[in-house]
Amino acid sequence: MKIGMSHGAGGEVMGKLISETILNNITKKEVNGGIGLDSLDDGATIPLGNHEIVVTTDGHTINPLFFPGGDIGRISAAGTINDVSVMGAKPLAITNAMIIREGFDIDDLDKIIKSLNETCMECDVGVIAGDTKVMEQGKIDELVMVTTGIGIVEKGKAVRDSTLQVGDKIIITGSVGDHGMSLMSFREGFGFETDLKSDVAPMWGIVEKALEIGGVTAMKDPTRGGLSNAINEMSNKSNVGVLLQDELIPVKEQVKAVSDMLGIDPYEVANEGKVLMGVKADLAEETLKAISKDKYGKEAQIIGEVTNDKHVLVETPVGGVRILEAPIADPVPRVC
Amino acid sequence: MKIGMSHGAGGEVMGKLISETILNNITKKEVNGGIGLDSLDDGATIPLGNHEIVVTTDGHTINPLFFPGGDIGRISAAGTINDVSVMGAKPLAITNAMIIREGFDIDDLDKIIKSLNETCMECDVGVIAGDTKVMEQGKIDELVMVTTGIGIVEKGKAVRDSTLQVGDKIIITGSVGDHGMSLMSFREGFGFETDLKSDVAPMWGIVEKALEIGGVTAMKDPTRGGLSNAINEMSNKSNVGVLLQDELIPVKEQVKAVSDMLGIDPYEVANEGKVLMGVKADLAEETLKAISKDKYGKEAQIIGEVTNDKHVLVETPVGGVRILEAPIADPVPRVC
Repeated sequence: MKIGMSHGAGGEVMGKLISETILNNITKKEVNGGIGLDSLDDGATIPLGNHEIVVTTDGHTINPLFFPGGDIGRISAAGTINDVSVMGAKPLAITNAMIIREGFDIDDLDKIIKSLNETCMECDVGVIAGDTKVMEQGKIDELVMVTTGIGIVEKGKAVRDSTLQVGDKIIITGSVGDHGMSLMSFREGFGFETDLKSDVAPMWGIVEKALEIGGVTAMKDPTRGGLSNAINEMSNKSNVGVLLQDELIPVKEQVKAVSDMLGIDPYEVANEGKVLMGVKADLAEETLKAISKDKYGKEAQIIGEVTNDKHVLVETPVGGVRILEAPIADPVPRVC
Repeated sequence: MKIGMSHGAGGEVMGKLISETILNNITKKEVNGGIGLDSLDDGATIPLGNHEIVVTTDGHTINPLFFPGGDIGRISAAGTINDVSVMGAKPLAITNAMIIREGFDIDDLDKIIKSLNETCMECDVGVIAGDTKVMEQGKIDELVMVTTGIGIVEKGKAVRDSTLQVGDKIIITGSVGDHGMSLMSFREGFGFETDLKSDVAPMWGIVEKALEIGGVTAMKDPTRGGLSNAINEMSNKSNVGVLLQDELIPVKEQVKAVSDMLGIDPYEVANEGKVLMGVKADLAEETLKAISKDKYGKEAQIIGEVTNDKHVLVETPVGGVRILEAPIADPVPRVC
């Protein structure tokens, strides 16, 4: 059996590979009773004294390296900061391992590191360790970056993706599909003007504001496989259903246009600057208001609620209801 | 200016790239007053309560993936465990990010993960988080693994590579050059029988035994650039000299033979299961004895001492003395 592109695309096929080839082979999947590998959450935790150390790692193979709204440096920093943040932890530092192709332009590397640094500085995150490897021409496609994030949360306060409660409201912090669809249209070069940009951004500011209100029950970073994948994971793991209102889910006009043209569902493509969260119903409006004060949260919306059904359903304005399935894989490859 | 293979080979050229393109662009290189990026030590630390969290990251691009004595799974686990260990910290967990080529055999991946797991279990280390990405054929050479290690040490007890003291003895925990030379001869396929094997192994057992004696002043993991690179880094950073005794440095007969044939200095090639340490003179024999009890420490030797000179010198049995320079780069590419 051979690896296919869908094994890395964040959907069901990838889930099976991880479960059979990785989880089955690892003996010690957690440390000191923390959140471990088999939770398949956005990060793991190691309890230590009154804290939990939150750890998360991410490989970045995005193509192209520079794209509208960002580059591999920004996405590496933001992606890792976001995974730590949605665990409810303050991101403290990242490590950065780079595998660079022989012949790669050092000026481009310089731009990428500057961008990584700027993104980290938005959240006062340090870059404390790294590694650099070089591979021969033809052995690697330009540059791969792997960032690992370290954060800290009070013991027992880590936020899971598996703890939605019936009655919770679902909040998305902004429009969905921007990253995947902008990348797709940039790559395809449709030949018409578009100012569609990736949403790539660090989310700790938003998460911190939301946590202060005290009603957040669950969070997830809706990257590969988009909103559909993230909400299905949350729903399955929490053993609850979700009812979303189609007209409340923010989708930019241009994203809609490109999606229609390409026949790709914007709910299924990656976001790189959004948080999906469950919030206690009585604190949902206040949480939304807090999020909206953040520069990255102006289009945040309450998009639905948690039910005691077993599916994720989407209701259309005219009253139709459809099941929102987890995608087999993200329809846009090499998206992060 | 373009990236060359030597930019990833652990020598002076790589040092310049890291200093100019990475360190210069990162604003926050340390967190909470811990050991940070600009120390260029084997790992970084984040002080937290009575502890320091030790963090280290490593990209593995070794070619071929399976080699005599190990595979990319074992080297990924051991390399990271070793970087944490030489900081004087107990390794608790690693994360594992994989970038896999489309078409890669899942049975091979299975073997690699099993090997990673076995290596971790030698030191009771968990694998708590991971990431999987897939790149198209022609965009990556089979498989790259990036592991990040998390360890814990009592506050203020982290061991540096920059704290050698004049009068300290230098201990190497076994023969040098095994990994690099075995990999080189395996790749070249000389057509004669050799049982030369990589030394790849996790070193926490040895380090723990050495630390218990209480005399360790400095440690380093002598990987890329080998003994020459590691001892020069320790000497430069500590602002001391080192005098090594050539006949005391353990080199296997077969490593010598291959080295002579290829004209490669075994002191300059990578080790993956050795620790280089400075130890207080009055505790050196006792430390050596403790190390020798470990299964990976049977060939450990006191190989020299720290001087108030500024160079690393090697004395031959007939009384000649030469300067041991840091190599420009590891003479064997894609060695880890």
